[in-house]
Amino acid sequence: MAQEKIRDSRTRDIGSYSFKEFKDMVVKFHGYPAAGVLIGGYMVEAAKERMPEGAQFEVIVETRKCLPDAVQLLTSCTVGNNWMRVVNLGRYALAMYEKYSGQGVRVAIDSERLKEWSHIRAWLLKLLPKHLQDSERLLDEIEKAGDSILSIADVCVRSDHLGKLSMGKIDICPVCREAYPQKDGSICKGCQGDAPYIDSVVANPMMQKCMGEKPV
Amino acid sequence: MAQEKIRDSRTRDIGSYSFKEFKDMVVKFHGYPAAGVLIGGYMVEAAKERMPEGAQFEVIVETRKCLPDAVQLLTSCTVGNNWMRVVNLGRYALAMYEKYSGQGVRVAIDSERLKEWSHIRAWLLKLLPKHLQDSERLLDEIEKAGDSILSIADVCVRSDHLGKLSMGKIDICPVCREAYPQKDGSICKGCQGDAPYIDSVVANPMMQKCMGEKPV
Repeated sequence: MAQEKIRDSRTRDIGSYSFKEFKDMVVKFHGYPAAGVLIGGYMVEAAKERMPEGAQFEVIVETRKCLPDAVQLLTSCTVGNNWMRVVNLGRYALAMYEKYSGQGVRVAIDSERLKEWSHIRAWLLKLLPKHLQDSERLLDEIEKAGDSILSIADVCVRSDHLGKLSMGKIDICPVCREAYPQKDGSICKGCQGDAPYIDSVVANPMMQKCMGEKPV
Repeated sequence: MAQEKIRDSRTRDIGSYSFKEFKDMVVKFHGYPAAGVLIGGYMVEAAKERMPEGAQFEVIVETRKCLPDAVQLLTSCTVGNNWMRVVNLGRYALAMYEKYSGQGVRVAIDSERLKEWSHIRAWLLKLLPKHLQDSERLLDEIEKAGDSILSIADVCVRSDHLGKLSMGKIDICPVCREAYPQKDGSICKGCQGDAPYIDSVVANPMMQKCMGEKPV
């Protein structure tokens, strides 16, 4: 499994998009032209190029920051269809792999190659507070560097990360009266106390009744 | 905090989109016209309508299935910008809230109201194997039901779910030579054994050297 250093390519397009076109897509979807999504565009395309033709692939992203949106913009893999999953290892990397065998490639930023690109290096290693970053020069470096700052390696995804997510049988929670996976227990996880709300009885009519309040 | 049953609205549009237009958007982004994303469209719009004008809002989704994609299609909140977060409680619900105060609304499917909608009910409760579902009638019911099957309640999101995700200081992992959050330990989580790959030394040149293999 030899790791390949990606050499300069002739253009700095991102797949079939120019850098400018992709930047506009990023602004529309992500809210602003985030450096991470732009570099991510080159990462996703580097992975796609290495997939066998017609392969049904899925993606694991190793960070929650920015990179998932590059995947969602440039592939059919999304968080909602579960063809993209985040396994948060805090590394700026992704794996794209054939969905049944798990065979694929992992693309990462090669920190050794960032010596020539001081703004990208400062962004990745958070060497400057955000308000001192020179966004224009950072984006300029990203476009110039393209995929030359990436490294790529063959990987095989573990079988416990392959296949469909199944919720199993569905029941109605006797507390909140909402549908939930039976395997979570006799009441749903929200009513077990995992709901992220200050007053979690809000969605919990029976408990509100117990407390003498109006059911909601 | 009174819970509001949403009454029939005059149209079954999804925000500024017709059902057909939104369905096309779902196919393009999600890969197919998933029932969950279509119902999710009505859920997201029901929440948006209740946000104060100009509010900067974020979203918590209580399931990984489909619903996150409705949020990503109809708001500026995505998994990559972290304005949308998944707190997987297995319930088909979302909370939309003002990002600093946490004040907002929670929208869920009201299982009591599904008695009139047998196909939606069968979908939510997984009463039929997928190949026996009548997709056409299911989608037809979704469009007819619109937001009439939803319930909505005021919520306040807990402060530990508010604010930016920060990775803290970044270091270079001495094993894989990639950038990672220092708080994860002296080596990155991937090199600690959390990488989802069969041969996790693939991205780990030093260990490969130890094993007498070519560095990758």
